[in-house]
Amino acid sequence: MTKSEKTADMRQLLMAGLGFSLADIDQRSTPGFDGGKKKGKAALAAGADRLSSLQEKLFAESRAGGEKAVLLVLQGMDTSGKGGIVRHVVGSVEPQGVSHHAFKAPTAQEQKHNFLWRIRRELPGPGMIGVFDRSHYEDVLIHRVRGLSPADEVEKRYDQIVTFEEEVAASGTRVLKVMLHVSKDEQKERLLERLNRKDKYWKYNPGDVDERAYWDQYQEAYQIAIERTSTLDAPWFVVPADRKWYARLAVQRLLTATLKDMDLSWPEADFDVEAEKKRLHAV
Amino acid sequence: MTKSEKTADMRQLLMAGLGFSLADIDQRSTPGFDGGKKKGKAALAAGADRLSSLQEKLFAESRAGGEKAVLLVLQGMDTSGKGGIVRHVVGSVEPQGVSHHAFKAPTAQEQKHNFLWRIRRELPGPGMIGVFDRSHYEDVLIHRVRGLSPADEVEKRYDQIVTFEEEVAASGTRVLKVMLHVSKDEQKERLLERLNRKDKYWKYNPGDVDERAYWDQYQEAYQIAIERTSTLDAPWFVVPADRKWYARLAVQRLLTATLKDMDLSWPEADFDVEAEKKRLHAV
Repeated sequence: MTKSEKTADMRQLLMAGLGFSLADIDQRSTPGFDGGKKKGKAALAAGADRLSSLQEKLFAESRAGGEKAVLLVLQGMDTSGKGGIVRHVVGSVEPQGVSHHAFKAPTAQEQKHNFLWRIRRELPGPGMIGVFDRSHYEDVLIHRVRGLSPADEVEKRYDQIVTFEEEVAASGTRVLKVMLHVSKDEQKERLLERLNRKDKYWKYNPGDVDERAYWDQYQEAYQIAIERTSTLDAPWFVVPADRKWYARLAVQRLLTATLKDMDLSWPEADFDVEAEKKRLHAV
Repeated sequence: MTKSEKTADMRQLLMAGLGFSLADIDQRSTPGFDGGKKKGKAALAAGADRLSSLQEKLFAESRAGGEKAVLLVLQGMDTSGKGGIVRHVVGSVEPQGVSHHAFKAPTAQEQKHNFLWRIRRELPGPGMIGVFDRSHYEDVLIHRVRGLSPADEVEKRYDQIVTFEEEVAASGTRVLKVMLHVSKDEQKERLLERLNRKDKYWKYNPGDVDERAYWDQYQEAYQIAIERTSTLDAPWFVVPADRKWYARLAVQRLLTATLKDMDLSWPEADFDVEAEKKRLHAV
């Protein structure tokens, strides 16, 4: 089995399709990877150049007028490791080619608009890899669980999201949605670590424990959201996330496979190569 | 000699001070580092965690109301390696804590304003490391060399820059200005590589050779700009850049030393740690 076949496997193994059941996924499992932490970290390091080269090609195409882009949507319960994905996976490519946005609770201005308004404003431009740390899915997750919007309003949003993401895909942007799936026990360990270390206090938010009390309702909300919005245009991938090294490796491979699928090519020279060589040697 | 002393050394060795002469700096030299490429790369990798931890502290302070920030200004001739610094040095810290901006030729709207207008808009917010890939210095470099602004206008800008940077420093932002100093021969090699590889064509711009013809004038413009604007508040560091590994290591150490100087501290918990532990164990 070649490396690229293995990458393709990871996509199929993790994609949420027909009959998807979040409750049946083991958060400590490592689908598509035979090996432990040490091998996983080595595989992540080994994959960085490939991802980086594909990203460069995407960026290069856009300089020559290409309109392709990628949008990576990251969702997950608190402590699921979204920040680590950004740093260890996305961090290995040229920062100039990445637009990263962490969506917080909407501002007063944002609340005046449809929930997709602020999302559209942050969509990646041509050649870019856009990364959403949380996203429009909060409007069908926390809004559903905590009743921040009326139930019938939330109900309408699933279809609105599907239509929106179809438009994004049609404009040339590949949409890759990842749920980092952490277990309730693992979350407790990670929150405890923040309470046990003075250099982690700043990451701790008492509100995280409030949300934790709604764990089962959140799992249900994720199940529904993924079921209703995992499309061929914008599939959901559920990545077991109790092992950070695995989650990072899996997202790297998903991103790499997505870029590989895009049939990117290096732009032709729009100048006379030989003439330029002569000019260069003359000065 | 301890590691931190070595870091301090690098700052002193590279800072442009009294009697600064750009022409006397050997672009292939490696001030403050005894060792070759292999050791240099290992030292860069070894320094990433330290830089990353300091950046996290800076970010954490801002979450608790701190207003400190860092601005890294990168200047250098084409191919001097600014992109590589961004990727290999700044890329090792949490992307959420970095605001990166590449300044291109000003737009029509930008041209209607004072040259510092667009610069102010991109200054890093509290807790951020801002990275300027080119900057307001273009307004005294290419503008001087190619006469894009009247000479008396350019002349006034040096003082305006000093005043501006004093304000930035007074607001709590450390300003660190780096010139990546590449030799004319090395630039030729790097441009030739772009002409010899199909996957590098997109990085080649015939305009680079046009600018190369003004090499000596650019060196003079850099000499003048650095002489007039290297202040204690916003010092210039000239980093020999013919060896990419050295330039990256040097900028990492400059950035690390700057952050270390800022007396950052982890914020106190603004919640009752023991009470939160109890709450967490209950859900």
